[in-house]
Amino acid sequence: MPTLNLDALRPSVAWTGDRIEIIDQTKLPGELTILELATVDDVVDAIYRLAVRGAPAIGACGALGLVVGLDERRPRDSSSARTALAELAAVIGSARPTAVNLQWAVHRVRDVASTGKTPTEIRALAATEALKIIDEDRDACIRIGEAGRAELSGLTTIMTHCNTGRLATAGWGTALGVIYAKAAAGEPVEVLSSETRPLLQGARLTTWELLDAGIDVTLMPDGSDAAAMAQGKVEAVIVGADRIAANGDTANKIGTLSHAVNARHFGVPFYVAAPLSTFDTALASGDGIEIELRASDELTAWRGEATAPADVPTWNPAFDVTPAELITAIITEVGVLRAPYEESIRAAFEGRLDQ
Amino acid sequence: MPTLNLDALRPSVAWTGDRIEIIDQTKLPGELTILELATVDDVVDAIYRLAVRGAPAIGACGALGLVVGLDERRPRDSSSARTALAELAAVIGSARPTAVNLQWAVHRVRDVASTGKTPTEIRALAATEALKIIDEDRDACIRIGEAGRAELSGLTTIMTHCNTGRLATAGWGTALGVIYAKAAAGEPVEVLSSETRPLLQGARLTTWELLDAGIDVTLMPDGSDAAAMAQGKVEAVIVGADRIAANGDTANKIGTLSHAVNARHFGVPFYVAAPLSTFDTALASGDGIEIELRASDELTAWRGEATAPADVPTWNPAFDVTPAELITAIITEVGVLRAPYEESIRAAFEGRLDQ
Repeated sequence: MPTLNLDALRPSVAWTGDRIEIIDQTKLPGELTILELATVDDVVDAIYRLAVRGAPAIGACGALGLVVGLDERRPRDSSSARTALAELAAVIGSARPTAVNLQWAVHRVRDVASTGKTPTEIRALAATEALKIIDEDRDACIRIGEAGRAELSGLTTIMTHCNTGRLATAGWGTALGVIYAKAAAGEPVEVLSSETRPLLQGARLTTWELLDAGIDVTLMPDGSDAAAMAQGKVEAVIVGADRIAANGDTANKIGTLSHAVNARHFGVPFYVAAPLSTFDTALASGDGIEIELRASDELTAWRGEATAPADVPTWNPAFDVTPAELITAIITEVGVLRAPYEESIRAAFEGRLDQ
Repeated sequence: MPTLNLDALRPSVAWTGDRIEIIDQTKLPGELTILELATVDDVVDAIYRLAVRGAPAIGACGALGLVVGLDERRPRDSSSARTALAELAAVIGSARPTAVNLQWAVHRVRDVASTGKTPTEIRALAATEALKIIDEDRDACIRIGEAGRAELSGLTTIMTHCNTGRLATAGWGTALGVIYAKAAAGEPVEVLSSETRPLLQGARLTTWELLDAGIDVTLMPDGSDAAAMAQGKVEAVIVGADRIAANGDTANKIGTLSHAVNARHFGVPFYVAAPLSTFDTALASGDGIEIELRASDELTAWRGEATAPADVPTWNPAFDVTPAELITAIITEVGVLRAPYEESIRAAFEGRLDQ
């Protein structure tokens, strides 16, 4: 088993010193196109068009966007630089209004950079803070990967859902971070990726990035999860998370709950991998999570080709909520959390997780 | 609730007296095109291209194809008519080599018609036998529908999978036959149709035929089954079957087992609807059912538009096997079978099912 060099893989978002380079995810899996974002318009457009997607990857791109914007505007004094920062944060931060990570990242860069005393210092602080956000995300991914590698030691055939890898984060990913960590350590690993209807993030993105990294991956329909488990093809399921409540209930891409129920039925361990920033400890349980319903056209056509009658009513929820009792463990950058999750999550946030 | 007139709905296969009319299923759901099949080439082509699909519908079309073939060849004597029947049965029967129903239907018409003493009598016998096959299938569908309507009495929101309706049979269908029976009786019924990846028979065909019949239908991704059940949106699941073993284990379209496992987890009854011809009583259990693996391109593209990297390895099983213990009841044309299925299936075949 050859080991994988993570640093040799192209990240979804990179910084050249004066512009952002992203993998254009709208072109995947057909072609690998690197987009250069040299203006704020470029940045907003890339985020809006989903050329860059995945909450941490969007945050990274948006954070760097403030530096691009300062270079573009060339403010003459610190006051106009601070005004520019505020305007840029507002413009870039609203490129996708529902992406919490994007708002958080641009506000963080704005607030830190605004303490600078000259335009040059402000620009330097913005660049440093944006790169720090990226570094922190990469570091969290690596820690999640290592914790997951230890937890899933000896398990080779892993099913995953949606895309939680280097196309979704600034690093190597959360659930896929565990896969990359196994490969980087030279451990055998084979991934079963479910398609993830309707937007096919598993089919289009997860398979692409694992093939690109030289990791064994097999694509299967979402509904074949039970058959795969019944036939002993799955040793563990690992998924990411959109939001985790204080009791461990986990909102994630639609289809996750079905995988979790099947995993329980067939005796397969079911893991969630996510950074602490995904936890919403103000939320007592998953009952409080509102389910976003998305447009019908995601189900009725694929790139202009009809897949269903155009006028059929649809039920197209963006995600579902997996109750904590179906989750074997939650893998975070500070360690592996187990039931009872109220206690382990509280311990993780208080820095006293018993490893 | 207005009642539905089943006889007013266009069947997938109809006979004009000298040609076959089929709904061109390759054009659905975009447009309703009626294809006239006036030659054997037309018939073979329609079956081969999946313009007609669903085992009973293919059987009906193939059976009528022998009559079309006799009209085309105009044999002068009974000997050449019998030769023509044998050749036509071989040609039409091999249009889709794996469709057991097709072989069975063309052989039945060939054998009955061959007893005729003149070309005219042979042609008349062929037409009568082909129409009898269609009548028998329609009758079985109606009986399944009525048995299912009684069994599912009071249940309104029904989830189904794949296409088991008038596009798949010569009648109103098996699982969808139960839906049509409810609607025809004026009972309230709302259908949740899963897409049924990869070929989207649920999205393309089930939604089309239910909308066409004026029955409430909502399309959802396969993987949203668990979320729908968790939210109380499903009062029963009903599916068809490809093959049922002597112990009740049921092979059906991939994704069925996942629905069944979720139904058990969420306390939703799970029904199979199928005619006795679907049972393979020589097969002790589902363990003996070989799973057909289908081509990668069903997962990697949709009508020429890439959905995944073209070279990604895939696992694309045509069906899965739901163990009998997950099945609430099996609805047949002779009544409702319940566990222990070895006994109820044997009783059904011996004509002593206790209704």
